Amino acid sequence: MDLVARLTSELGDAVTVAPERLATVRTDKSGFLASGTPLALVEATSVEQVQATLRLASEAGVGVVPRGAGTGLAAGAVGGAGVIVLSVVKMNRILEIDPANELAVVEPGVINADLDAALAPYGLWYAPDPASKAISSIGGNIATNAGGLLCAKYGVTREAVLGLKVVLADGRLIQTGHRTVKGVTGYDLTALFVGSEGTLGVVVEATVRVLPRPTGDVVTLGAFFPQVRQAATAATAIVGARLRPAVMELVDSQALDAVREYLGDAVIRDAMGPATGDGFLLVQFDASPAPDTVLRAVELIEQAGGQARVSTDAATGEQLLSIRRAFHPALASRGEVLIEDVSVPRTRLADAFDVIAEISREFDVRIPTVAHAGDGNLHPNFVVEGGVLTPKVRAASDALFRAALELGGTLTGEHGVGILKRHHLIDELGPDSYALQRQVKAVFDPRGILNPGKVFEITE
Amino acid sequence: MDLVARLTSELGDAVTVAPERLATVRTDKSGFLASGTPLALVEATSVEQVQATLRLASEAGVGVVPRGAGTGLAAGAVGGAGVIVLSVVKMNRILEIDPANELAVVEPGVINADLDAALAPYGLWYAPDPASKAISSIGGNIATNAGGLLCAKYGVTREAVLGLKVVLADGRLIQTGHRTVKGVTGYDLTALFVGSEGTLGVVVEATVRVLPRPTGDVVTLGAFFPQVRQAATAATAIVGARLRPAVMELVDSQALDAVREYLGDAVIRDAMGPATGDGFLLVQFDASPAPDTVLRAVELIEQAGGQARVSTDAATGEQLLSIRRAFHPALASRGEVLIEDVSVPRTRLADAFDVIAEISREFDVRIPTVAHAGDGNLHPNFVVEGGVLTPKVRAASDALFRAALELGGTLTGEHGVGILKRHHLIDELGPDSYALQRQVKAVFDPRGILNPGKVFEITE
Repeated sequence: MDLVARLTSELGDAVTVAPERLATVRTDKSGFLASGTPLALVEATSVEQVQATLRLASEAGVGVVPRGAGTGLAAGAVGGAGVIVLSVVKMNRILEIDPANELAVVEPGVINADLDAALAPYGLWYAPDPASKAISSIGGNIATNAGGLLCAKYGVTREAVLGLKVVLADGRLIQTGHRTVKGVTGYDLTALFVGSEGTLGVVVEATVRVLPRPTGDVVTLGAFFPQVRQAATAATAIVGARLRPAVMELVDSQALDAVREYLGDAVIRDAMGPATGDGFLLVQFDASPAPDTVLRAVELIEQAGGQARVSTDAATGEQLLSIRRAFHPALASRGEVLIEDVSVPRTRLADAFDVIAEISREFDVRIPTVAHAGDGNLHPNFVVEGGVLTPKVRAASDALFRAALELGGTLTGEHGVGILKRHHLIDELGPDSYALQRQVKAVFDPRGILNPGKVFEITE
Repeated sequence: MDLVARLTSELGDAVTVAPERLATVRTDKSGFLASGTPLALVEATSVEQVQATLRLASEAGVGVVPRGAGTGLAAGAVGGAGVIVLSVVKMNRILEIDPANELAVVEPGVINADLDAALAPYGLWYAPDPASKAISSIGGNIATNAGGLLCAKYGVTREAVLGLKVVLADGRLIQTGHRTVKGVTGYDLTALFVGSEGTLGVVVEATVRVLPRPTGDVVTLGAFFPQVRQAATAATAIVGARLRPAVMELVDSQALDAVREYLGDAVIRDAMGPATGDGFLLVQFDASPAPDTVLRAVELIEQAGGQARVSTDAATGEQLLSIRRAFHPALASRGEVLIEDVSVPRTRLADAFDVIAEISREFDVRIPTVAHAGDGNLHPNFVVEGGVLTPKVRAASDALFRAALELGGTLTGEHGVGILKRHHLIDELGPDSYALQRQVKAVFDPRGILNPGKVFEITE
């Protein structure tokens, strides 16, 4: 009996081979399309089903691609020819909220925003907030160590995960971490699984730390600058002055053009008045910032050449944020987009924008860019035609990766390596660390069945 | 030529075989004394010397015990017969302070408090604050993922480490992590090394995240309760009310006795007035807490049966803290002490004190206990005679470990496994995770030369 028949016999309805369903799991939000079609899609509804899938696939030596909500941007969860795609998106129960210990226990398919909504009545909050939080799952957030807008102040996913239940490649179930605040018993396998992109095991349960929901007033500043470099300089100065904004986002000139076209000039004028410029900085303070903090931020913005508008009411704050939020829909409306994700030390942010402008000129491609300016994480975007990376765009994005490393940065701040960046991984890690990481992978997955071809090109 | 001769020929003065020096590295602050004497002590002053030591030891198949300031409490850095002890305590330079990027780069021998002092002029702060911070090194803090008094609010060492330079067992140098706030390129080897107790490699440089130093007023509360259980209940209630104290410490009745004898009744009366009791809770809020926060804490203390004294001046605050701080010297003055380190979910703190009282009765041993009540980390102390664990004390501490696991806790919150807890490791991890962790160890240290006999009993 072949693997699909064995899976069907053991898991019944959870297994599908319908071509239209299989087509959906060949891609993710990166737009990458895997070549070929997977053997089957298993939509697990229990830990036992995940275990059975991995046990049978392991026995058959067939690759398994773990998948959550499919919102990845690095093609880390796409399935092509010859593999089983194992979705945990139906395992979406919040198993426990423990307000007194400030933790929650969830299945991996829980949507980030749904967890947050369930915590709100307790005055609690799940801090990691990827821009995709309305559609991305906690399991996927863990797989990529997802970041977001609030990371500089409140940390990334790794900081929020206390412990995991993980099914190993051969179907065994292990538990990592603890429900306590502290714990140093053995190696930190929890942190090893966070960001491992489905290459070491399949997360079937997570115990996450939750925080008291920030209270108090929110103050939002919007500022236009003649040049994007000035906006980046202001952002660096605000961090350097220890003002600790909760959100600090930067939108460059090409990105602003797209937003203007998408929202209309009027919306921006409503929020920002007649001011305009080639760089837009949004700074938001939470928890009732001291008046001095806000005044100092305005001063630093003006020193860098910008004009700030301060809003203390929620409605105007939302209007200002909507300029930043409109960026991705604006670009998507123009065609398919490759969203890049390099990160640089915060002091190199202005230099990074210079380099992006150079690359844009040199390769004659538009690279509209937004940045989480509080933490130095940039998302340069390449508009691509028909989902195919042209040689020009590929060369430009390669140049971008090299530049990020030269600036002391990383290839990926929060999206992961997946397929799209696997060729560059060794450049950042160096050959010794790369080899060690592959050996660690082999400890957890000796037959190489977990997410083959992702992160490490272990199957090639 | 034997290994010591080769080391001496390559490293000269860095190598010592003087018996009185070798005697000092057979023990640490746990009081454990390794059997036999190490072959040599290497006091490295450079990365190259660490590399040479490991290369030569690896070739010879001789064990190497990495060691920092020797303040460990689990015998994780003690050297016995047949091994080389490799001290990095002389590699104690602060290589860089980068205020704008809020990071510092240090050698492993830098003393925790020295880093903090160097950061102060910049308005910056190294948050991890083990009670040993005046004498413990950053390298040792990293090896044990050290905690401290401020962890519940400001995180443990893992949260503060951005990247590492590590010498592998065979002498190769690798780099992990990044200088950026975010980064998800490959597995999180940084977190894997943090808390690995010298069993995976030797940390020779660390890039650590530093925070803006908290400003504003400090408010300190001291409270006596008739029973320690009530103090624990108050602590749990304060966390549950989301009041977020920076420090919350609990001292039980037997510990109070020792402090009273050591400090004298008058000192305690000066700080606390005539109030007394069998449990003492110290709560400190930083960064100018709202008056409501302090009043609510007083209310919760009174509801639990305690009497609080509130201090808003630094001098009285220090007096109150001194009661807690006197605990370790008070016990040390009575003889040698085995400081245990279990951690439980914060809501089980009162139950943990009940269990400790039961064990104390059952085994007829005194177990004075302090706890980091904000995070559920307890330090029950066993006074031992002449550095030897009697069967009675060993049985009592075994019962304590079992109880911590039954309460949903961990064997060690911040001291590590070392030699003292290695026999219990598998009880917490389970056989599958234990086996995986040993395989991970074997990837980094295929010949098993790194810190043999610690954490995993890999040499037995």
